[in-house]
Parts: sequence; structure tokens; C-alpha cells
Amino acid sequence: MLPVAVDAMGGDNAPHEIIAGAQKAIDDHGIPVLLVGKPEVLEEITEIPILPASEVIEMDAEAGSSVRQMKDSSLVRAAEAVRDGAASAMVSAGNTGATMASALLRMGRIKNIARPAIATLLPSPGGTPTVLLDSGANSECNSEWLLQFGQMGAVFAQHRLDIKEPRVALLSIGEEPGKGSPLIKESFESFSTAQFNGGSFVGNIEGRDLLTDTADVAVTDGFTGNVALKTIEGTMKTFFSTMLEKMTSRPEATSALEILGPELDELFKLFHPDTYGGAMLLGVKGVCIISHGSSGALAIENAIKVAAEMDDANIVESLRSSFS
Amino acid sequence: MLPVAVDAMGGDNAPHEIIAGAQKAIDDHGIPVLLVGKPEVLEEITEIPILPASEVIEMDAEAGSSVRQMKDSSLVRAAEAVRDGAASAMVSAGNTGATMASALLRMGRIKNIARPAIATLLPSPGGTPTVLLDSGANSECNSEWLLQFGQMGAVFAQHRLDIKEPRVALLSIGEEPGKGSPLIKESFESFSTAQFNGGSFVGNIEGRDLLTDTADVAVTDGFTGNVALKTIEGTMKTFFSTMLEKMTSRPEATSALEILGPELDELFKLFHPDTYGGAMLLGVKGVCIISHGSSGALAIENAIKVAAEMDDANIVESLRSSFS
Repeated sequence: MLPVAVDAMGGDNAPHEIIAGAQKAIDDHGIPVLLVGKPEVLEEITEIPILPASEVIEMDAEAGSSVRQMKDSSLVRAAEAVRDGAASAMVSAGNTGATMASALLRMGRIKNIARPAIATLLPSPGGTPTVLLDSGANSECNSEWLLQFGQMGAVFAQHRLDIKEPRVALLSIGEEPGKGSPLIKESFESFSTAQFNGGSFVGNIEGRDLLTDTADVAVTDGFTGNVALKTIEGTMKTFFSTMLEKMTSRPEATSALEILGPELDELFKLFHPDTYGGAMLLGVKGVCIISHGSSGALAIENAIKVAAEMDDANIVESLRSSFS
Repeated sequence: MLPVAVDAMGGDNAPHEIIAGAQKAIDDHGIPVLLVGKPEVLEEITEIPILPASEVIEMDAEAGSSVRQMKDSSLVRAAEAVRDGAASAMVSAGNTGATMASALLRMGRIKNIARPAIATLLPSPGGTPTVLLDSGANSECNSEWLLQFGQMGAVFAQHRLDIKEPRVALLSIGEEPGKGSPLIKESFESFSTAQFNGGSFVGNIEGRDLLTDTADVAVTDGFTGNVALKTIEGTMKTFFSTMLEKMTSRPEATSALEILGPELDELFKLFHPDTYGGAMLLGVKGVCIISHGSSGALAIENAIKVAAEMDDANIVESLRSSFS
């Protein structure tokens, strides 16, 4: 079994939380890991095998030029390890743009796929999560790309969520076919007659449907998708912190809140991005999992698990054959 | 004091909840109301003065053609009442597109403003609400329109929220100037050198900042704005209902939850769209308040209050002079 290449230098909590998550993936799930990064830093902390990389692409660095110039960076080396068959997949909580660029430039695009897209899982209590894509790779899109996102999203929902006939929808501002931006109106027509690898197009959905069981795959451009994703995160954060503040403002409330501890934990977990272990970059010739910059050990552990599962499920091969 | 023209026939809960809200506005706030709608329906229920209108534009009707054809509809008559000086403002929970079209076609645009935009208030606990615009009037925009939205939003924040020097931001997918769609990048440049009626441009914000005190005015195109707005609504709804479900799954939790009743009420109110009484259509020559289709009496009461306040504050005159 090939190891998962984990960028040990990327993310707000690197390298300690990354290493802790990697160790958990090894110990609890038996998944081999290859840590990518500076040996002099990593050897001090861990005995996990290391793939040396002397450079680190900073979180706010310009993606394209960094990847081209920093050939010995942990991100570039991780992507090369997947390309060269030394790793089954890569995981990074570092610079998202540079992660995408590394994967795209080193692994390459799957034939006939115009643009890779980031697929994120959104919690949908009582149902299966909703796949949102593109959640940030392409800030301007055309309708052909959106259609491919829908088709990639369907394959992803089948492999990642075990949904045989995924319901694919366009994210718009009204359910009727005529509603939305010119891009969405044009896409509505092409989606209506397209195939989705056994799934089907169910029309437009709205922002309020994202966290419900209305559709399995929500397709949008990377700008709208990223705004929606971060809006969800921000809304939850504000709601949660305001709730805790209000509910600890008198002693009786605080005591009641303590009783609700298990439920609060469950809620927090259900809606926390770490639970799903990161998004997947679809369309490149290898498994690439993009974790949140703020990922802790749990998020990294989950991301490594997802990476191994996606490799196991042969998702890249499935995408390749469905676009051939 | 001129009455507020209230579309008695629009919204999911018309006419009863609309009338109940209007009655509260009259009784508790001393605001005169003119109900616009079918006399034979309304006279049976209320003694509030009526402006007769024999037609009703349905919630899902095509906006432009409905307004052009249904000249005796409650929406068109309400807009005409404002235009003709028979009412100080209009309020509707009906078809949003038709409400905008009625206001635009009957009241007209303020000189030099290219496109009206919908300004919505987003809760920001601990700070003043954030003005989001455009939240749905224009699904495709150019950078000149966005700049005007920013300038209208600043005037609105001054009048509606009493913020003297509003912080105006662009909603994007990264804080750096280079981040975002081509529209946002272009807008960043024009915003950087523009005046905002005493306010100032503070750069890009992300979806996660919308419900925080990072900016006072968040500018975006109507497609992205509407997706963000409905995503917030949907996230809150899902979070709230999941919380209540989890927290009533064992007797001890249910008892604890009962103790937290006052805090839950406060939270619910803080995040519920009804609290702010609707959005305002900025850029037309009159006050037009657009309420949520699901508005109940409280939402309508608040909308009428906001309408009267905005007329009182002479916001239309302020917009006119800042764009002259």
C-alpha cells in the first residue's frame, strides 16, 4: 500500500498538528504516511518517514510563480511523489492556490477535462452531505466548464458518498429555468440534455437549499462557490459564538448549557469543516485533498483517511473513463 | 403625515398577516397606513383605509410583463400612490421582481443612478448590522454599477444605521487586492479612488466576514448577493432546527432547553430576517421596502416602521443630492 504524501509545512498549525494528525492516521487507520518537508525540522519531532523538501510556499504567496520557482517546496515535492508513483495521494492545509497549481502542473489534467474544480462537502443533517463545486478554483467560468463540474461532481458523489444516482443542481437565485445570471441560464440548457454518469439534473437550487437534502451536487462558478462556502462558515461561527455568549449570561442558563454538553459537541462536530477532512481537487491525474488552513490534527487525520479512500475507490480512473 | 402604502395582497400570508402588521404599526407607532388591494376582500377584515386595486400579481409571475399588463394591480397602485404624493412610501411582501419593476417604472430612477439595488441588513452581533447590496436586483453587473451600489450603500448606512463614516467593502474570495473575479478586480481599482459620501473603502472582505463588524457596507453583484443572503438564511434555519432536534432527544436535555427559553428567543429574534423588516430598493424616486415573502405580522409592522423612518430621514433626497 502506497503512503499518502502529507505536506508537513502547510497550514496555520504546521508542523505539529499536521504530524499529530498523520500519526493518528497511521496508528488508528493503518494508513502509511510520507511527511513532506524540511528534514531538520521534522526529524526532531517524529519518526514518520520523510520526503525531504527544503522550501515552504507561504500561505499568502502568489500561487503560480511560487510553484514555478520553488521546485524544492513541500507542495511541489508532494505532487511529484503522486505523479511518480511514490505516494497514492497528497494532502495539504497550506496555500490553496499553490496546492492546486502544484497538483495541476505536476500531475497534469485528466484528458478532456478543461479545468479542475474544488469539491467541498456541506453538512445536510438528516441526509447525505451536499457536494459544492467549484468552491474556489476558477473565479470565472463558462457553461462548458460548469457542465464538466456537474459531471465530475456526480462521479465524486458516487465514490465519496456512495450515492448511486446523484441529483445534480445549479446554484442560482430562483428555481425556475429562467432565473439567474446569463451563465446559469445558458448552463441550464446544456445541463438539461446532458448525462451525469447515472445521475440526473434536477434544476436550479438556491442558497437556502445548500444545507438541505434537495440536491446531492450543487454546481457553481468558483467565485460564487467560495463566497457561499465562507458565508456558511461565517454564519455558523457567528451563530455558535453568539449562542454561547447569550447562554452563559446568567447562572441558571450556564448550568442548563452544561447539561446540553453532549448535544453541543455533536452539533459543533456536525457543522465543523474539520469533520469532512477537506475538499478534493477534481480533474487532475491524482488524488489531491485540500484542507482548511486552520486544520488541526483531527482535520488532517480525516483528510488522510479520505485521501486513502479516494485512491482505494479509484476515483481518478473513474473520472478518466467517464470523460474518455 | 402621509400614509405608508402597504400591498395587502402580496406575500405568502396575505392578506391576514399583512393587515395585522399594518394595524400594529397604526396602533403602536402612530403611523398612518393605506392598504392597497381588493376592497371586497379587505373591507370584510379591517377598517384601515383602502386604495382599491382589482388585480394581484402572483408570487411566481414574470415581473416585467406583469407590471406592464396589470395596471390595476396592488403593486402598481402602491408605487403610483408614492409617485403621486398620496403615500410616503410603499411596502410589499409580494413578488420581489414585480415590486422592483413597479417602483422603477412608476417612481422612476434617481438621476445619474444607473441601476437600483436592493440593500439588506445582515445581523452582526455586538456591532451594527452589515448592509449587503445588491442582494438581488441585478444578476449581472459592471464595475460602474458596483461603485454606485457602494455609494448608495454608504448613504443608506448613514440614514438607516446612523453610521457617520461607513466602511465600504467589496465582497470577494480573498482580502488581497488581486483576489476575486475580473469584475471585483476592476472594481477594486475604481473603489480605491472614489468618494463614499464621507465613508471610506476598506478593501475586500470574504463571506465569513458578512456577519461580523469588519465592514458596514458589503458590495456585490445581485447574483452573488442573493446567493449569500439565502445561504445565510438557509444555514441559520438548518442550524436552528438541528439544534432543537438534538436538544430534545433526551428528557434532561429538554428540561435544560426549557430553562434556556429566553436566550433562545433572543437568538432567534437576532438572526431572523423579520427583525429588520425588509430590504430597501435604493435608487428609485421614493421609499420602497421589500419584505420577505414569508413575512408575518411582525415583519410587516417593522417594514412599515422602517418605511416611515426612511421617509422621515429624507433618504431619497440625500441620494439625489449625493449623485447630482
